[in-house]
Amino acid sequence: MPNIAAESLDRLRTRTSAKWALFPADVLPLPVAEMDFPLAEPVAAALHDAVRRSDTGYAASSLPQAEAFASFAETRFGWIVDPARVTSTADVSMGIVEALRQATKPGDGVIITPPIYPPFFDLAPEASARIVEVPLSGGIGDGWSLDLDGIDAAFAAGARAMVLCNPHNPVGLVHSVETLRQLAEIAARHNATIVSDEIHGALSYGELPYVPFLTVSDAAREHGVAVTSASKAFNLAGLKCALIVTASERGDALRAAMPYEVEWRTSIFGQIASIAAFRDGGEWLDGVRGTLDENRRLLATLLAEQLPGTGYRIPDATYLAWLDLGALGWGDRPAERALDVAKVALTPGVDFGAEVGRGHARLNFACSPDLLREAVARIAAAR
Amino acid sequence: MPNIAAESLDRLRTRTSAKWALFPADVLPLPVAEMDFPLAEPVAAALHDAVRRSDTGYAASSLPQAEAFASFAETRFGWIVDPARVTSTADVSMGIVEALRQATKPGDGVIITPPIYPPFFDLAPEASARIVEVPLSGGIGDGWSLDLDGIDAAFAAGARAMVLCNPHNPVGLVHSVETLRQLAEIAARHNATIVSDEIHGALSYGELPYVPFLTVSDAAREHGVAVTSASKAFNLAGLKCALIVTASERGDALRAAMPYEVEWRTSIFGQIASIAAFRDGGEWLDGVRGTLDENRRLLATLLAEQLPGTGYRIPDATYLAWLDLGALGWGDRPAERALDVAKVALTPGVDFGAEVGRGHARLNFACSPDLLREAVARIAAAR
Repeated sequence: MPNIAAESLDRLRTRTSAKWALFPADVLPLPVAEMDFPLAEPVAAALHDAVRRSDTGYAASSLPQAEAFASFAETRFGWIVDPARVTSTADVSMGIVEALRQATKPGDGVIITPPIYPPFFDLAPEASARIVEVPLSGGIGDGWSLDLDGIDAAFAAGARAMVLCNPHNPVGLVHSVETLRQLAEIAARHNATIVSDEIHGALSYGELPYVPFLTVSDAAREHGVAVTSASKAFNLAGLKCALIVTASERGDALRAAMPYEVEWRTSIFGQIASIAAFRDGGEWLDGVRGTLDENRRLLATLLAEQLPGTGYRIPDATYLAWLDLGALGWGDRPAERALDVAKVALTPGVDFGAEVGRGHARLNFACSPDLLREAVARIAAAR
Repeated sequence: MPNIAAESLDRLRTRTSAKWALFPADVLPLPVAEMDFPLAEPVAAALHDAVRRSDTGYAASSLPQAEAFASFAETRFGWIVDPARVTSTADVSMGIVEALRQATKPGDGVIITPPIYPPFFDLAPEASARIVEVPLSGGIGDGWSLDLDGIDAAFAAGARAMVLCNPHNPVGLVHSVETLRQLAEIAARHNATIVSDEIHGALSYGELPYVPFLTVSDAAREHGVAVTSASKAFNLAGLKCALIVTASERGDALRAAMPYEVEWRTSIFGQIASIAAFRDGGEWLDGVRGTLDENRRLLATLLAEQLPGTGYRIPDATYLAWLDLGALGWGDRPAERALDVAKVALTPGVDFGAEVGRGHARLNFACSPDLLREAVARIAAAR
């Protein structure tokens, strides 16, 4: 399968989405998690067809996208999903909030693991729950891992749920089967719920494949809820279709207790695009993974050459690089100087955790190698 | 402007949306509020363009759709909307829930006015509030109106908000300026909030034009929140873009207190389609209104000829007919026999209110005149 090339800057600047609309034309935008590749041809064809038949009414059911996902999950991950145990909704963040509303009472603790995708700090409060931070162990040098003892202690202190990021955004960590099994046992011991955001699952790079949480043990199936989507792997974040997946009667009861309207919030174009992606997008996805695999390594080379001292661990998954830019001497928020002086937009590290994110930034490498080269060169020139 | 004709049955049956997917091929589907017309050409063109440029990332901002709506609202309704006082989200039901979460505390009463759009029974409970029913006054014979004394009493008894349906689904009532002014005064007296669902506003028929709640008085601007969308008038329910509009500091504070993620749930294709619809869809909309105007009158003729005794008041707005089918002698749920024997799908009246909906059904006349004739003939033949 040939690698998929990013679109030209001229074409990208015609997009109206956040990555390309939020910055002036002299800025290279590498923050928001969107990709610069053209849509997979089967997805584009399905969307054109939907427009032609004016198929813009309500999505009728979760089942078609659940069936397409089940086939994709079995082929890609060996994960057997029962389509009857899937509820779709608009996006993964909404799925997480709705799962937390069922899994917690107002004021209950919800564990998150900084550095972590910034909206995770908002989703538990949105569900009237309370954030409990248990930072990842390790670091860029030695590698990251969940702090299982810390998570156990937080559950013992009263937390009722955890939002797992699997694979982990922003550090690109693929959790091992053994870690996930232990996490499931901890959750079972405390009769707690693990809500596993698996939106980046299809973007792991092979040497350490992503492990779906619901596949690791009976305890995981009993205490886990997976929330996933075609949106990240196929760049469909704006089309609004995500899947809430369970694999036990306990999980099913949690899904069934959600308001009826949750499912009706699925976008029909999100549904149509997701079905096409899951069914017929595999070749495109592998082409994109090839490009991203090269980019994650290219970034290591570029940083070593031009920004020595930058902390970067090549991610196991995702198209996101978590960078320790402390060596630049640009203070707690190096993304500000990168934007103002280098005209390179990164996501500020402190958004991922006020402590652990100091001096850090997240860089999105789902772009052309040339754009990546230019971005690193601009930052190096701004020192 | 020429009337817009519905698409052929053969083409409609290729749609995957709820109206066309939820029933077998021998059923004429007249329930779910979708229209059988082709998309407005400017909307279809904008969507094709978005697919061509792979513009499927996150919607960047509420502002473009707010500006397009403000221009549409001024031209159509003389309503001056400040685009800076608009937050978009995925759909009107989500907008109502998020407004109620801010306007009420858990357990507070929220007034709704049966017969009423069925999801209204779920939205207050979703926001942890409690439904208080104040049925409409009047009826099919004399015409409907809000029971303002009943609403006043319900607020006096502790209700903190009301979901107004303006125009009213299913009875097609356009509330008068005077009624809305009095409602706003009542809300002001009790320091309560009116959340006004105005999704059908652009589908009124001229002799009694729809009145935006936020235009009627300072009290309405102070205590009102309007939620609207291009979705009903332009048949974009599955594309997921709605607008929460306020017109006072109190209203702005309510919008500002909503979780940050609410706005990010807007679909970019919903945004793109809505902008095209509001900006360039006027001619198409007037063509659709022409067809619907004929259909609402044709339905009266057909019922008088073939189903005498059916209660039907030609609606001032919407493409929905609220029918009293008691004369058929088909019991509390005539929609069941209509589906089983006549093979015509209607929405059961009891879904709109257990008491007031007995013996009733809602019929969607956004279809071809031939389909409407066939539906009435089938019901008549099933007597």
